[in-house]
Amino acid sequence: MVRIRVDLAYDGSGFAGFARQPGQRTVQGVVDDALTRLCGEPVSTTAAGRTDRGVHATAQTVHADVPAEARLLRDLERGRAALDAICGPEITVWRVRRVPRTFDARFSATQRRYRYRICDAEAINPLERHDTWHAGPPRLDTAAMEAGGRHLLGEHDFSSFCRRRDDEQTLVRRIDLLTVRRPRAGLVVVAVEGKAFCHQMVRSVTGCLLAVGRGSKPPGWVADVLAARDRGAGGQVAPPHGLTLVGVDYR
Amino acid sequence: MVRIRVDLAYDGSGFAGFARQPGQRTVQGVVDDALTRLCGEPVSTTAAGRTDRGVHATAQTVHADVPAEARLLRDLERGRAALDAICGPEITVWRVRRVPRTFDARFSATQRRYRYRICDAEAINPLERHDTWHAGPPRLDTAAMEAGGRHLLGEHDFSSFCRRRDDEQTLVRRIDLLTVRRPRAGLVVVAVEGKAFCHQMVRSVTGCLLAVGRGSKPPGWVADVLAARDRGAGGQVAPPHGLTLVGVDYR
Repeated sequence: MVRIRVDLAYDGSGFAGFARQPGQRTVQGVVDDALTRLCGEPVSTTAAGRTDRGVHATAQTVHADVPAEARLLRDLERGRAALDAICGPEITVWRVRRVPRTFDARFSATQRRYRYRICDAEAINPLERHDTWHAGPPRLDTAAMEAGGRHLLGEHDFSSFCRRRDDEQTLVRRIDLLTVRRPRAGLVVVAVEGKAFCHQMVRSVTGCLLAVGRGSKPPGWVADVLAARDRGAGGQVAPPHGLTLVGVDYR
Repeated sequence: MVRIRVDLAYDGSGFAGFARQPGQRTVQGVVDDALTRLCGEPVSTTAAGRTDRGVHATAQTVHADVPAEARLLRDLERGRAALDAICGPEITVWRVRRVPRTFDARFSATQRRYRYRICDAEAINPLERHDTWHAGPPRLDTAAMEAGGRHLLGEHDFSSFCRRRDDEQTLVRRIDLLTVRRPRAGLVVVAVEGKAFCHQMVRSVTGCLLAVGRGSKPPGWVADVLAARDRGAGGQVAPPHGLTLVGVDYR
């Protein structure tokens, strides 16, 4: 067997999330089926970020082990094009490459980067509605949001911001960067970076920061929510379609 | 009757163009029906740009005459919100305002601005596929494209670049601005501005410039195509989904 790394992007709108689930259309389901078809035997991928239903990715990374004689390996650019064509217009395959067996898309990742897009104008450009949450007015105070976000930097128990998965031992995570920018009128972008995130963490953080941005909570409230270690302490969870996995780094 | 001006945007993907057509889902059909519902009697709009099937708009302008007693007129912001809600997520209503009876969305327009997005990378971000033409490699030479486009500036007979409509007397038009920019790797944006355009003109111009950008034709070829006054002289017509009406100016 040979290990391959596949870098891909997807419009999450039509998928029940990344992870394969019986009877559901998922990104992993489509990619695994396409690889299986190209390799002639069952292939299963492992992803850097198991994104939720409706969440997008412009830079997701997966790995898989494929038979050494797979046609896919003979010409990786042609293999990429074939995989891309089979996966369809909602999934794009940027690159396929051979990697050492020590490479693990999930466990070798040193940093994951997410971006959450919010429209705080009265109305939203319909061409942006697929990957932007139309929260609407009032206009968000991005400086207050960023000040609130600073309480989350570093290593903390993020119980207040996560839905615990069955297999999770700890909800201690580390956020290395959190910025809130307004690239143009009506659009606010929350960028979050860290080694790993727990379930719904970025969406919960964004929901909390929204309350701060609207002025209904002061920036210091974010520290209170964090300290509570209680999922009920925070604000709403921002909807999935504003969230995109935009980068995964490896050593 | 009172004349209103409505500024709107739409994702053209699911529409058979702007103009009402029997048995087809069109932008005008949806907007007219919504206005008719809100006003209690038949309302018909006139648009600045009758965009084709699949073409988008971030800034389309229409006018219509509505009964002076229409509820819509009592509170224009509430009227806008109601119209926006009825039109649905593919159409956004930016603004509704009263205008003098002399205002005509089509004939008072002094300038129309279009933008055509081309992806010349091997693969396209799936979140951008709705309003970007994935032409693919080779990498486009934007300087050559802009040089080609300079032959089109000013007033000309654009017969080579238009599909003649039954009601059109002349295909003489004036292009005031044509730029070709690369805002980032993999994306080329053709921006065209003029008082008025004939049918499929921006898409035909873009198709011609693509041949120049790929190096299969020199920039001067655009002048030859123009001089030929023959629709068969040009290149391919770029597909509709890369085109967006981004602005209409009035005095």
